Amino acid sequence: MSSTVDAYIESDHERFLEELKEFLSIPSVSTLPEHKPDIERACGFVAERLREAGIERVERIQTDGNPLVYGEWMKAPGKPTVLCYGHYDVQPPDPLDEWVTPPFEPSVRDGNIYARGAADDKGQMYIHVKAAEALLQTTGKLPVNVKFLIEGEEEVGGTAVDRYVAENPEKLRSDAALISDTEMFAPGLPTLCIGLRGMVYAEIVATGAAQDLHSGLFGGAAPNPLIGLAQIISELLTPAYRVQIPGFYDDVEEPSDEEIESWVQLPFDEGEFLREKVGARALTGEAGFAVLERLWSRPTLEVHGIVGGFMGEGAKTVIPAKASAKVSMRLVPRQDPEKILQAFRETVQCLTPRGLRVEVKTHSTAEPVLMSATDPAIEAGARALAETFGKPTVTVRGGGSIPIVARIRESLGIPVVLMGFGLPDDRLHSPNEKFHLPNFFAGIRAVARFWELAAEGS
Amino acid sequence: MSSTVDAYIESDHERFLEELKEFLSIPSVSTLPEHKPDIERACGFVAERLREAGIERVERIQTDGNPLVYGEWMKAPGKPTVLCYGHYDVQPPDPLDEWVTPPFEPSVRDGNIYARGAADDKGQMYIHVKAAEALLQTTGKLPVNVKFLIEGEEEVGGTAVDRYVAENPEKLRSDAALISDTEMFAPGLPTLCIGLRGMVYAEIVATGAAQDLHSGLFGGAAPNPLIGLAQIISELLTPAYRVQIPGFYDDVEEPSDEEIESWVQLPFDEGEFLREKVGARALTGEAGFAVLERLWSRPTLEVHGIVGGFMGEGAKTVIPAKASAKVSMRLVPRQDPEKILQAFRETVQCLTPRGLRVEVKTHSTAEPVLMSATDPAIEAGARALAETFGKPTVTVRGGGSIPIVARIRESLGIPVVLMGFGLPDDRLHSPNEKFHLPNFFAGIRAVARFWELAAEGS
Repeated sequence: MSSTVDAYIESDHERFLEELKEFLSIPSVSTLPEHKPDIERACGFVAERLREAGIERVERIQTDGNPLVYGEWMKAPGKPTVLCYGHYDVQPPDPLDEWVTPPFEPSVRDGNIYARGAADDKGQMYIHVKAAEALLQTTGKLPVNVKFLIEGEEEVGGTAVDRYVAENPEKLRSDAALISDTEMFAPGLPTLCIGLRGMVYAEIVATGAAQDLHSGLFGGAAPNPLIGLAQIISELLTPAYRVQIPGFYDDVEEPSDEEIESWVQLPFDEGEFLREKVGARALTGEAGFAVLERLWSRPTLEVHGIVGGFMGEGAKTVIPAKASAKVSMRLVPRQDPEKILQAFRETVQCLTPRGLRVEVKTHSTAEPVLMSATDPAIEAGARALAETFGKPTVTVRGGGSIPIVARIRESLGIPVVLMGFGLPDDRLHSPNEKFHLPNFFAGIRAVARFWELAAEGS
Repeated sequence: MSSTVDAYIESDHERFLEELKEFLSIPSVSTLPEHKPDIERACGFVAERLREAGIERVERIQTDGNPLVYGEWMKAPGKPTVLCYGHYDVQPPDPLDEWVTPPFEPSVRDGNIYARGAADDKGQMYIHVKAAEALLQTTGKLPVNVKFLIEGEEEVGGTAVDRYVAENPEKLRSDAALISDTEMFAPGLPTLCIGLRGMVYAEIVATGAAQDLHSGLFGGAAPNPLIGLAQIISELLTPAYRVQIPGFYDDVEEPSDEEIESWVQLPFDEGEFLREKVGARALTGEAGFAVLERLWSRPTLEVHGIVGGFMGEGAKTVIPAKASAKVSMRLVPRQDPEKILQAFRETVQCLTPRGLRVEVKTHSTAEPVLMSATDPAIEAGARALAETFGKPTVTVRGGGSIPIVARIRESLGIPVVLMGFGLPDDRLHSPNEKFHLPNFFAGIRAVARFWELAAEGS
């Protein structure tokens, strides 16, 4: 089958590229209300291409936010069902003057297509559509049942799709999910992401006096919430960033020796990471753990902002009545966000300095995710990638959270195959975002092959 | 002489009040450019009233900012010269809807005059003008030589007057300065302020990565400047707010036992201060020192704002490349701002956590001020107040800095008599600012008497 697909892709190469260009020309920026018509156009474009590919029951699903596109092909009885997720919305293109060619006039240079959304996620999402088309137009069928669910507000929080998945587990019931919205660890290196950190995002609100006070008149007697927050934060972490919340590390599941060893084999250079990606004087983090462990399998505590008092230019001598610190903790497998949040609350209360009242607000929580490398769907994904790229697939984790993954895990209880075709230098969210075109075409072959292998594994 | 002055004040009571109302009706708000014409009107009003009082060589002094008013009466050869300072500008009146009567329509209720600037400083400054008038119109002379210097931008930093004093020491040469811009410790309690804390206001700028980073992708390996600042701040102070900078307390001059004892005698209740003025759970500050000592004779370190990362509503997972903390230290006599600043810089550098670069910027420094209670001018001020109010004058200090006082001390090298007639509940800078009218008239008598006593002391 794969040679038929290859031939189809080969012969329709130019048309695929023109379609992708048309898709990338639609400025479907979800953060900007003035692009609402473009959101509709992008939604319509996706629905139409799905229909043309041969996907059935394609529908535009109205939501409180931007519409979803759903479609399915369910004519493989006895075979597994794969749920394909993607998003048609994009980040704003600013700053415009840093783009070599305009963000919504796709331009091919040196084998890359440059446009906003090229890699995140239009180009990657479109791989799934073209893989379905290639199989359906050449063989008349797909090896597995397939459901498509494409959203239009991933860049603004994905509220609608989150709710839709939570409320429609029956309709979306599948055996595995497929998402192409991540990247390969290095060019040419087939990569499957099997784990994501979870998160607790909280805000510590400290209140001292009943109103802002003048530090000349009250300094020396009135509690200062900013100083209190600094004291609390410095007690929450050692100087080496080890979290000091009692029980914080109790449930942390260490990666297996095999997984750690596989990370050691990755083409990763700590000095280059420091120089090229971070640009600080030195890296930080827990002693005794390699950088990739600290990023992927160790929990953290970070402060994102401290609000209160005088934040303008210059000087003002205020002791603020109130100040707050935005604090998040990244969590790893077996850590329970609710348990961690509770321990955080209790520790913060214990650390509250004299004179202050402290309240902990929760912004969000997300479960950590870890797929089993021996899950059939994961194995099928790894094999499809290896065959397509001609070398063994590496498995990595991600340090961030992808909310839809946690939602699919929670509501549908299925493995999520994070098969990404982006590259580390694709400049997502930045000017001159690009997508490597050989990866676009290889991706179509890899996804078609994944469906084949998933069918065999059933 | 004093009975003549008393009779003059008594007979012209209504006219004085009408003039004060006219002065207070001018919305000379220095922070708002649209009030520039009102600034000019207030300046003109002051100059005209000085001329009418009999003050000579009255001039409007053009500056880069708002104009100064200067005037003098120098016909007391062999007698001391007193420099009288005040300001004709006022704070903005917002929030307007909290005023019982409009801020620029002065209204007398229960023996108080309500208007923006009533106590700060138009009403108090006008005391000096009326004292000069009362003496000159009844006796034809003043007991001392007097120079007036009235500014129009005290509420926005007083840059022009600061420069003018620094550049014109010869013209302004005097034996003492008189400022009525402070308050009495309690109603009816004659009060002289003899000390002010100095200040170093600095900003610690911490830089980590070359650009803002995502805490999912980099949390666990990249330095976080907000965490670094929290660590530095918490090391700069003990939990009890004792400053941990080496040598910080070395030059602190303890108040004399007599001065401390005089503070103990003041009508001050710590519980009431906590409840009425602060409204926090508890007071804070160095152990072993009473509240008034902590406010007046002990140095402090405060944090006024921490800037960097995400400071909006909600949550964002940024590790900022840069963050800064606005930190001030209040200084007490014998502490040298430059020496303290240097020690602060060195300590902050020592405390800089791994991965960060730290820079200390200076916003301002001010010398602490302490007048000798046995200085003849201070003694004359205390006696004049005691005679006027019929009870012994208390001497207090202020916890803040009054920049013009430090400037006069530095450029003219003279004692500054801080003879304030405001009351603790005058609501300076707030809606329903008021001035207690009996204090206005008593102030005129007290200032006239101060000049007499200053002449005797020469």
